[in-house]
Order: sequence, then C-alpha cells, then structure tokens
Amino acid sequence: MIRINEHYAKLQAGYLFVEVARRIREYEETHPDASIIKLGIGDVTLPLPPAIVSAFEDAVREMGAADTFRGYGPEQGYEFLRKPIAERDYRSHGMDIAADEIFISDGAKNDVGNVQELFAPDIQVAVQDPVYPVYVDTNVMAGRTGPAREGRYEGLTYLHSGFQNGFVPDPPEEAADLIYLCFPNNPTGSVATHEQLARWVDYARRNKALILFDAAYVAFIRDEGLPRSIFEIEGAREVAIEFRSFSKDAGFTGTRCAFTVIPKDVTAYDSAGMAHKVHPLWNRRHSTKFNGVSYPVQRAAAAVYSEAGTRETRELADFYLENARIIREGLDTIGLSYTGGTNSPYIWAHGGGRDSWELFDMLLNEASVVTTPGAGFGRGGDGFIRISAFNSRENVEEAMTRIAKSLG
Amino acid sequence: MIRINEHYAKLQAGYLFVEVARRIREYEETHPDASIIKLGIGDVTLPLPPAIVSAFEDAVREMGAADTFRGYGPEQGYEFLRKPIAERDYRSHGMDIAADEIFISDGAKNDVGNVQELFAPDIQVAVQDPVYPVYVDTNVMAGRTGPAREGRYEGLTYLHSGFQNGFVPDPPEEAADLIYLCFPNNPTGSVATHEQLARWVDYARRNKALILFDAAYVAFIRDEGLPRSIFEIEGAREVAIEFRSFSKDAGFTGTRCAFTVIPKDVTAYDSAGMAHKVHPLWNRRHSTKFNGVSYPVQRAAAAVYSEAGTRETRELADFYLENARIIREGLDTIGLSYTGGTNSPYIWAHGGGRDSWELFDMLLNEASVVTTPGAGFGRGGDGFIRISAFNSRENVEEAMTRIAKSLG
Repeated sequence: MIRINEHYAKLQAGYLFVEVARRIREYEETHPDASIIKLGIGDVTLPLPPAIVSAFEDAVREMGAADTFRGYGPEQGYEFLRKPIAERDYRSHGMDIAADEIFISDGAKNDVGNVQELFAPDIQVAVQDPVYPVYVDTNVMAGRTGPAREGRYEGLTYLHSGFQNGFVPDPPEEAADLIYLCFPNNPTGSVATHEQLARWVDYARRNKALILFDAAYVAFIRDEGLPRSIFEIEGAREVAIEFRSFSKDAGFTGTRCAFTVIPKDVTAYDSAGMAHKVHPLWNRRHSTKFNGVSYPVQRAAAAVYSEAGTRETRELADFYLENARIIREGLDTIGLSYTGGTNSPYIWAHGGGRDSWELFDMLLNEASVVTTPGAGFGRGGDGFIRISAFNSRENVEEAMTRIAKSLG
Repeated sequence: MIRINEHYAKLQAGYLFVEVARRIREYEETHPDASIIKLGIGDVTLPLPPAIVSAFEDAVREMGAADTFRGYGPEQGYEFLRKPIAERDYRSHGMDIAADEIFISDGAKNDVGNVQELFAPDIQVAVQDPVYPVYVDTNVMAGRTGPAREGRYEGLTYLHSGFQNGFVPDPPEEAADLIYLCFPNNPTGSVATHEQLARWVDYARRNKALILFDAAYVAFIRDEGLPRSIFEIEGAREVAIEFRSFSKDAGFTGTRCAFTVIPKDVTAYDSAGMAHKVHPLWNRRHSTKFNGVSYPVQRAAAAVYSEAGTRETRELADFYLENARIIREGLDTIGLSYTGGTNSPYIWAHGGGRDSWELFDMLLNEASVVTTPGAGFGRGGDGFIRISAFNSRENVEEAMTRIAKSLG
C-alpha cells in the first residue's frame, strides 16, 4: 500500500495568501466599482531593463541556430554567469568567494526549501518570528517538527523579532543546529549590522551550527555601513550558506534565476562527529534533482553585471526605495509606528492594538488597499501588516492618501 | 551540532557520466588528432524550431515592456500552456485529463526526483534494471534503501529487463508500493504494449500501489498500436502519475520545460489506511518549493502546440529516428544483437560476451566513438552499451562505418 508522508498533514491549511485572495475576491464582488491597489505580495512591477532584454533576445536567437544551439548546460550553471557573480558581488567587496562555490538555480525559494534535505531529520531548527513561511513549512514536511499549536510548531526554536530588539534577534541560550536568517528581512524590513551578524557567526562556530542566510533583498541596501553579505563576517565561510536572487533587484520574478553560495569550508558532521564538507553534498543533490537553468535566462542574468545592466537594475531598486519612502512618510503623518522601508522594499507597520486581520480588513474595506496581515508570518507578526513598495508611483501615492483618510 | 543526512554516503561515488568523461579525456590526451564522435549522453543537437524561437522572442519582448511585463506566474503553470497539453496530448486521444491536473515544471528529472517526498520513508520501491539512475539515487538519499552491494541497493525491488522479457518486466510476485516505469525506456529503448501496461495498472489497483510513469521519450513512438500514455489504460487515473518533457521532442534540454500529470483520482493512504488524494499534496509541495517556470519559456513550450510547431517538432523526432535506423542497420550488418531504436532514440546493443566497459573502451579506442556503458544503469545493464541517436546525420553515418571496421 502506498503511504503518504504524514508530516504534510501538520501544515496549517489556510495558507496566508490564499486567505488574502479570498477576502479580496469577496470585497470585489460586493464593491464592483472599487479600484483596488495591491501592496500585498512582494512582486515587482517594472519591466526587465533594456540591457537584460537585449541579452535575453540574443540568447534565444542563438538557440534557434545550429552552430550556436546549446543543449544541457552544466547543472551548477554557466561560468559566464558564475564568474561575474563571484567577482562583482563578492571578491570586489573583499570577500573570498570563488566561482565554483556558486550554484545557479531557478529560484531562491527552491534552494532555501531544498537545502534542508542535506541534513539529519532530528537537528534543531531555529527561525525568526515573524518568518518567511517557506523556512518553516519545508521543515514541517521533512518531519522536523511536531504539530502546530497557537501558530507555532512544536520542536522549532522561534527567535522573536520585535521593537524591543529592533527586529534583529540575538542568538538563543539553547543550542540550535540550523538557523534561518533573512536580512534585509522579509517581512519586517530590518537589516542586521556587522556586530549582530558577527554574534551569529560566533554562535555558529561555538555550537558547530549552520546559518542559512537569505539575502534575496540585498539590492535595497543603500547604507554603506550595513553588511550586504554574511561573508563580510570573519569565519562565516565555515558556517554559512547564502541565498541570493535576481527576482527583486533585476525584476526576475517571472523570468526565474537565483543563486546559492556554498563556500568549500562549510562543514557539517555525521553521527560519529566526523566532519564533512557541505559543498559536495549540495553538488550531488543539485546534479541529481536539477538540470540547470534555461540558457537564455542565464544570459539575461549575466547582463545584470554589464555596465548598462548594473546602472539599469540599480534604477529599478531606487524606484521601489522611493516608493518605500513615500509609504514611510505617509505612516509618519498618520502617526502609525513601523520599521523597515529603508534598505528594504517592505514596511512593517504596527496596528496600534488592532490585530493583523482587523487592520487588513479595515484598509481593504475603507481604503481599497491590499496589504499582508502580519499574523500570516507567525505569531510574532500579529498586530502588524506588511506593506510592499512594489507598485507604480501613482498607485503608491494614491494608496497612502486613502490610508491617511481611513486611519488619519 | 549540524548533522548531515547520512544516507548520501550510500550513493555510489563513481557516477557513470563522470567516469565516461574521464576516459574520454584520457583518450583525447593520448590521441590529440582523433576526431571523436559522441553517441553517449542523450542530449539533442538540432536547434529550436522557428515557430518556437519566434514565440520565445515575442515573450522576451513582452517582459521588456511595462504593459505586458509579467511577475510571478501561477506555480502550477500558465493556462495558455496547460490547456493545449490537456487537449492535444490527452483529450484528443480519448484520455480524460483536465488542465488543472497538469503541473508545469523546469524538468522531468526534477519532478521524478522530487515526487518521492510525498510518500512515507518505509514504502517498498520497485525499479526496472537497467534503470535511469535518478529513480534510485533520490530514494537512496531519502533513506529508502540499505547500502549498495554488487551494483544493487538493499531493500529495493529490481525488475530485471532482458532479452527474455523483451525488456519489459511483468509485475513482481511480492508487493511493491511505488513503481517507476519508463517507456519508451531509457536506456533500453523498449516500449510496453497496452496489454503489458494493463497488467501493471491491474497490479497497482490490487495492491494499492502507485505507478510513476516516465514518458519523456513519447515523441519517438511512431507505431500506432503502442500506448503513448499510461492514461490510455482503463483505471490508470487512480494509480498513476505521468512525467513528460519538452526536452527531447522539442529540443528543450537547454531551454528547460516539462510537465507532470497527476489526475485528481490518484490516491495514497495514511498509516490508519485512510485514503488521501495525491494532487493536493503535490500542489502543496510545488507551491512551497517552486515558483513556476520562466514566462518566456512557457510561451516557447506553448508554441509546440501551434500548427507550425507541431510540424516542426515532429520533424526533429523524425530526424533522430532516421539516425536510429542507420545505427540499427549498421548493427545488423555487423551482426550485433540489440533492442530499441524504433519508437525510441536509444539503441541498446549487446556486446556478445564482452562486459560494458570493455565494449565502451574498444569503441572509444578503435573507432573514436563514445557510447554509454550499460553497467552504469545497474547490474542488469552489464554486457550492453547504449547508443544514442542524438547527433548529426554525418556523424552517425561516420560512427557506424568506424564501428563496423572495429567490430565487423
């Protein structure tokens, strides 16, 4: 008899964005004339920049000609993409990362979801709370948790992020083995300092733990004093894996390209305490269950590192950061407290005593503005909403005018 | 302490294609003037057809314009691709498959490797022998086997495929829960008949088992009497999942697009014997660990179903099938026994008493022709080589002339 993986049954049924979509639909049906502005899901709105489109088109044409056609590419990704990543994102900033420590994939969500496969089922997992749900759900599916009770799964270590710690938790007292950190943070928009990350790297080295560092929103960091990578921290090459994406900084949410950096020093252990390198394990996983990213997409991603591509993608991030500034200014006027929105496309606003869904419903019904209820990111998110800066200037301005009317 | 998944240590180190590459390199170094012809790896050589390139380019341009840009798409894939698949690959052939039973992905290897996650760790897995290594390796990684001994993993059920059963094994006496079948077969090129598949579907229904049917090579079936899908068999909607790909029939090995069909009737059970549908489980996995296929790639794949695309992709398969005919003719002349090469791009040739690597080395050294040693596909492959029809006409003809000289 074919039996299911029963851990799936522990997953909480009402997935956040499904419930959000249901409430929007209901509102649309009862208010057919409302012009809804969506500042909910973190999806980009600006088109691919010209330098990227041009490289993308050229590569498609190559696929149509016999002498330039490409079949299977290297599972780890083409060197023409891995080399500029290593050089421009790491080495030129003083970080010792080589091209063969980079794995190209079709999404940071995929990699961050799949990487836990490399580790034992009974390790202790720690996540921030609020948290990007994929970190939690993939460990639930793998059987690393008990059932959920009051918005938290038994067996996980939750690191509360709130106003009291500036939304950047310190390492816990107890030992954790696999730690998910995300900065600039989704959903709170907080960014850890060098000192804060150094405490985590130190913790990981002392406890033989591993940090999974999700840097999908790094392009929004404008403050020169903030770290753009975990590998800016001394010793991180032994205890950290970093995930990055072209989704937000180059508008690739529909084009699909990302990468994961696994330094060859990253170490994990077997039950006898023997050290093993993680790089060959991921390489084996990647080449067994993945077949590389589409060649034209990799060419498009490589164009991000051209002179024009660098300028044009920076303009994309600048545009959304200006939206974020407008949202912050609006919240300041209303007097709502928040974090994020600088060095991040997300603003994490506090409802002043209202619960998340109450605030969500209020903004939807009174302002026709869609946000994301913080409770969807875990118990630590209750009382907050996430406002996303990914929309047109006009819509963001209009949304803030309406929110001010509703809450002001 | 972060501990590794120790099942990875059971994986046999010398991956087939790595060893093949090593021997080619060694030969090239000692024979710098040899012109090597590669009939080893199953990678396509003809460029993308014009109708597909044109749709691909149009979609890239859409991504560069504000009013046609697309961000995140539906994780399950766009309807513009799922609908023609359901209609043209299934419904028009009398199979009751709906568009929402189709999941678009970036590779059949990925899906066939990931699908085992939905099931319990202690189910009984059955594979053909010889076998496409991904079916085995992904179950080894998930802990469903013991260590390997003499080319077979403890705990797996191996279904021997040889001349005596026409390379299509019958269901075993013992119960198996998850059964991997691949027709047209990689590596043997065999194709199961309706009667043979019906015996498997009947077995699965009697044993509450699940069949994973890999139909990646379906485009090469030209015999109208052979089934092109497991869903041609009555009752398969309850017990089978089918994997298809655009890799081989449309030249997408470097472009990346595939799909998996999970009928809503497919059922698995929990440990209490309660029935659960598999479709929502895969949907949950797919939406948690995957973010959809690149929009322009999906447009390119949809063009396969246009009038021009249908004609042009059929011509691709025809071209490789003519190569296969030339290879078969060559082997007939030499007097080497083989199977496959009709309704399949693979020819599975018997070495007449030589072991796989001996035959591989002989053809490499005497004819400068690269094949794939059958032993790499499991114990049942020893004594065979796989010859692939994916190459230019000129190279295939020259290879067969050289092989005839060497073995004739």
